[in-house]
Amino acid sequence: MNPVPPQVTRRSFLRSVGVTGGAGALFATMGALGLAPTAAQAAPAFRAPRPSDFSLTGRKPQKVVILGGGIAGLTTAYELGKAGYDCTILEARGRTGGRNFTVRGGTEQTDLDGHTQKAKFSDGVYLNAGPARIAQWMVTLDYCRELGVPVEVFTNQNASAFIYNESAGMTPGNAVRYRTGKADVYGYVSELLAKATDQGALDSALSADDKSRLLSFLSGFGAIGGKASGYAYTGTEHRGFVTDPGAGTDAGTILGPPPSLTDVFASNVGRYFSFEFGYDQAMLMFQPIGGMDQIPQALTRAIGAHRVRLGAAVTGIVDGPSGVRVSYTQQGRSKQITADYCVAAMPPHLTARIPHNLGADVTASLASFPATPVGKIGLEYRSRWWETDYKIFGGITETDLDLQHIWYPSYGHLGERGLIVGYYNTGSAANVYSALSPADREARAIAQGEKIHGSKYRTELATSFSMAWHRTPYLEGGWTSPPYTGPGYQLLLQPAGRVYFAGDWLSHAVAWQHGAFVSARATVSALHQRVMAG
Amino acid sequence: MNPVPPQVTRRSFLRSVGVTGGAGALFATMGALGLAPTAAQAAPAFRAPRPSDFSLTGRKPQKVVILGGGIAGLTTAYELGKAGYDCTILEARGRTGGRNFTVRGGTEQTDLDGHTQKAKFSDGVYLNAGPARIAQWMVTLDYCRELGVPVEVFTNQNASAFIYNESAGMTPGNAVRYRTGKADVYGYVSELLAKATDQGALDSALSADDKSRLLSFLSGFGAIGGKASGYAYTGTEHRGFVTDPGAGTDAGTILGPPPSLTDVFASNVGRYFSFEFGYDQAMLMFQPIGGMDQIPQALTRAIGAHRVRLGAAVTGIVDGPSGVRVSYTQQGRSKQITADYCVAAMPPHLTARIPHNLGADVTASLASFPATPVGKIGLEYRSRWWETDYKIFGGITETDLDLQHIWYPSYGHLGERGLIVGYYNTGSAANVYSALSPADREARAIAQGEKIHGSKYRTELATSFSMAWHRTPYLEGGWTSPPYTGPGYQLLLQPAGRVYFAGDWLSHAVAWQHGAFVSARATVSALHQRVMAG
Repeated sequence: MNPVPPQVTRRSFLRSVGVTGGAGALFATMGALGLAPTAAQAAPAFRAPRPSDFSLTGRKPQKVVILGGGIAGLTTAYELGKAGYDCTILEARGRTGGRNFTVRGGTEQTDLDGHTQKAKFSDGVYLNAGPARIAQWMVTLDYCRELGVPVEVFTNQNASAFIYNESAGMTPGNAVRYRTGKADVYGYVSELLAKATDQGALDSALSADDKSRLLSFLSGFGAIGGKASGYAYTGTEHRGFVTDPGAGTDAGTILGPPPSLTDVFASNVGRYFSFEFGYDQAMLMFQPIGGMDQIPQALTRAIGAHRVRLGAAVTGIVDGPSGVRVSYTQQGRSKQITADYCVAAMPPHLTARIPHNLGADVTASLASFPATPVGKIGLEYRSRWWETDYKIFGGITETDLDLQHIWYPSYGHLGERGLIVGYYNTGSAANVYSALSPADREARAIAQGEKIHGSKYRTELATSFSMAWHRTPYLEGGWTSPPYTGPGYQLLLQPAGRVYFAGDWLSHAVAWQHGAFVSARATVSALHQRVMAG
Repeated sequence: MNPVPPQVTRRSFLRSVGVTGGAGALFATMGALGLAPTAAQAAPAFRAPRPSDFSLTGRKPQKVVILGGGIAGLTTAYELGKAGYDCTILEARGRTGGRNFTVRGGTEQTDLDGHTQKAKFSDGVYLNAGPARIAQWMVTLDYCRELGVPVEVFTNQNASAFIYNESAGMTPGNAVRYRTGKADVYGYVSELLAKATDQGALDSALSADDKSRLLSFLSGFGAIGGKASGYAYTGTEHRGFVTDPGAGTDAGTILGPPPSLTDVFASNVGRYFSFEFGYDQAMLMFQPIGGMDQIPQALTRAIGAHRVRLGAAVTGIVDGPSGVRVSYTQQGRSKQITADYCVAAMPPHLTARIPHNLGADVTASLASFPATPVGKIGLEYRSRWWETDYKIFGGITETDLDLQHIWYPSYGHLGERGLIVGYYNTGSAANVYSALSPADREARAIAQGEKIHGSKYRTELATSFSMAWHRTPYLEGGWTSPPYTGPGYQLLLQPAGRVYFAGDWLSHAVAWQHGAFVSARATVSALHQRVMAG
C-alpha cells in the first residue's frame, strides 16, 4: 500500500515531478504514491548520535558547554549525551525549562520591574505560563513518547466557548457562542452562494454537475432551506438550545431566531473561524498530564541533574582554536568553564548582550530578532462555574478586548476548583497589562472577563498569578520574530568558530517547542558530523 | 449580569416576547436578559426525592420493582433511593449497564445466532461497545460529577483523520485528510461567493458594508487571493504539509496544489463537515476514564448491589389495584416479586413481548418503536501505528464503505498497544456485518480499513471483538426510533396502572445516555408525585 520506502527523499522527488509535470501531475503522483493526503508522514531525518559512532571509529566524545537550559539546550545535551558527549548546561534561572514554565502553589518569581509574586494555587491547580499545547504532528509528542511523559487532550476549540467583539457593538452579557456564530455565518454564506449559483451567476465557473453538488453541500453545511424558500437561512439546531432536549415531549427549545445577515456579518464573529484550520492549531492537540514542565523535568532527569548548573548567568564567551571558554556568575561568584564546543541556546537578543569574540556580525545578527511582548494570567476559582453554569469544559473564548483570549482548563474536569487563563495576549495588549502591578492586572482581567461571564467571574475568584514574559529576567520576551530572509538568520545557522546556536528562533516553528526540538537536533547533527570528521 | 432568577420560566416569557415583538425583539430581549447566546443554561427542573419528603409528611417510602438495569433503570433506583424507596432491579444480563457495555479482556458473550466470543484484549485495552461519547451539555456529565466518575476528552473530530469515498472514485491509498478536504471545499466556496459578490450578483441581498465584511470573512475562511487574482483559491497551509516545518531554512512543504473545483466537489468530502456542528456531536465531548461502564458501576455501587438481581429475565407483569406482581426466571427457576409500583426500563420492543395485563394498546405502543441494527468492532493492535506513522491521535475517519466509521482511540496515547473501532455502522451496513461470523467480520473490516491505512491495518492486528446489538440477547437493537407524533408515544408517557415506563426511547435524546437519564428523572418525578399525593 505504501510503495515508497521511508528512506527515499520524497520531497525532492515530488519537486522534480512538480517541475516537469505541472500541478496535476504532481498531485496525481502524490496520490499514486499513497503519499499526498493519505500518506504517513515521512520519517524524521534526524539520527541521534550513538556510542558506537565513537567506539567503532576510535574517536572520543567531546566536552560541550550549553548556554541555556530551555527546551533547545536540554535537547542538545540529551541527544549528544546519547553518544557519551560530556555536556554541561549553564542555566541562569533556578530551574530548567526556560519558557516551558508551570506555575504551582509556592512558585515565586520577581520580574524586571521588581514585582514579586508567590503563587497561592491549590494542590493540583497549575498554570502553564509558557507553551501549553502540542499539535499532533510536532516532534514534541515524539519526545513525550521517548521520555515517558503521558499526555491528554488540550482543548483548543470548543463549540460552547464564546466570542465577544466589543468593537462590533456587543455589550456585556451578549457574547455569542462559537456554535451560534458559526451556524449563522455558515448559514448566510450558504444561502448567498446557493442563490447566486441557482440564479446562474456562476455559470461560467460551474458545470451543471458542479452546481448540483455545490447546492447539495450548502444545504447541509448551512442548514438552509430549499429552492422554493430561496435557500433561506432561518436558523438551525446548530445554533444551540435555550433549553436542552429532554424527556417525553420536551424536544428542547432551539436558540433563535438568528439575527439578520447584516447583523451577523457586522458582529465580525467570523474572524475567528479560520484559527482552527491552522496546521499548528487544529485539533486534536495535547498537553502533558500534570503540567507542561513534565517535559523539561523528564529531559533533565535523562540528562542527569549533575550536568545542569542552575543560577549560572553567562557573562562572556571566548572562542579559541582548540576550545571555548565561558564565564558566568553563580551565587555571586565569577566562574569559568572550558569545553571543546559551545551551544548557545539562549534567547538571541540576550546572547547579543554577552561580551564575546565571535565578531560584530554575530552580535548584529543576534540583535536582529525582535522579541514579542506576551502576557498570561492564571485565575484560580473556588468553583468550576464555567462547567456547571455554562457547560463549558475547556476551549478558548475569543475577544477583541486586550485580554484577547480566555482559556478554560483542559484538566480537572468535574472537580471543585479550577484555573482559567484570564488573558493570553501579545504586543501592545501585553504591554498594557505588564505596565500594571500584579494586583491591577488581576483587576483589569476580571473587569474585562466579567463582560462575558458575569458576576461569578469576580466573586468566585480565589487567587491569581500573572506572567509578563517580556519583563521576565533571562527571557525578556514571549518569542522572537526571525528575519528569515536576512543574512543574519543564515549566519547564525552556521557555527561561529566552535560556538553553535540553537532555539525555536532558528526554526520555522517559532514559539513552539517543536521549533526548539528540531533546531537542537539540527545543531546536534552539525556538531556531531564535525566531530566525526575531525 | 444575570437579572433573571433561575425560577422564572424563561421559555414561556421568551415565547410571549417573540409573539408580540417579532424576531428582532425576541433576540434583543434574550440579549438584554443576559440569556440567549451568553446565558448559563437554565437549572435543570428535576428535584430528586428526599427523605424529608416522607419524614415531614408522615408518609412511608414505597416498594418499587424496576425492569432492566440499564442507565434508565439504574437512575430510577438511584433517584428513588435518595428518599428511601425500597427498589429492586431485575436485570436479565449478567451485569448492569444495558447497552452501556465496556468489553475488556475476558468479557464473554453469546449472540442470538450462537456466536460466542471471549475478548482477548490486553490489560488496559477496552472497547466501549455501546455509548462512547458525552456532549458537554448532557446531564450524563452531571451524574459523573455527582457519582465521582472522572472523565477525559472523547476525540470526536480530528483534522488529521481521513475521508474515504469509494463511490466518488477514491482508490485505496488515496483517502483525504479532513484538514485537506476542508481547506479545498472552504477555499472554493469562498472563491465562488467572493466572485459572485464582487460581480454584483448579490447586490439585491447585500449592502456595500455587507459585501465588504463578507469579502473580508471569505478571505480568511477560504485563504483565497484578492480581487486582482479573481479571489482564486490555489491552496493553503490549511491543507497540511508533506514535510513538516523544521529547523533552519526548512519551512516545510505544503501539500499541494489542490485538485480542481470540479474534482473537489465530485469527491463529496464536504458531506461530512456539518457533523461537527450538531448540538449532540460538537466538540468538546467526554468519556469516563477507564471505560464508559464506570457510570453504571458507580450507579450500582450507589444503589447497593444487593438491590440488583442479575440473570433475572422478566416473564410476566400483572398490575393490580394495590400493587404489581412481576414474574421472572433466574438460574432456571421461576420467581416472583411484588411491589407497590413497577418501572419498565427495558427496550420497548422486548417489553412488548412480555405477557401482561396492561392492555393491548400498551403492547401495540411498545411494539411501535422500530429497533435499529447497530454494529461495532474493536480491533486491538500491537502498535499504535496510527500515531507513529499517521500522526493521528484520536478522532474519526469517515467512509462510504459499509464499515462507515473508524474511530481512533481517545485513551492510551503514546503507549504500546491500542484499540481502533474498525466499524461502527447502522442499518443495512450493520446487517451485512452481523450476518457474518465474528472471524469473517474481522476479515471484512480489515479488508475495508486497509484501503485507508495500508498493510499495517492487517499485519499489526492482535485480536478483535465484535458487537451486533440487534443480535444481542435482551437488547436486540442499538436503539429505537420513537413514533413521537403517534398516540403510542403519548400513551407510554403515562403509567399503565402502577406500571411506569422509562428509557432513552421516551426522550428527545434517543441513543444517548442523556435520554435515559432525563426519562428516568421524569418517571421518578411522576411516581414520587403520585406517592406524595396518596
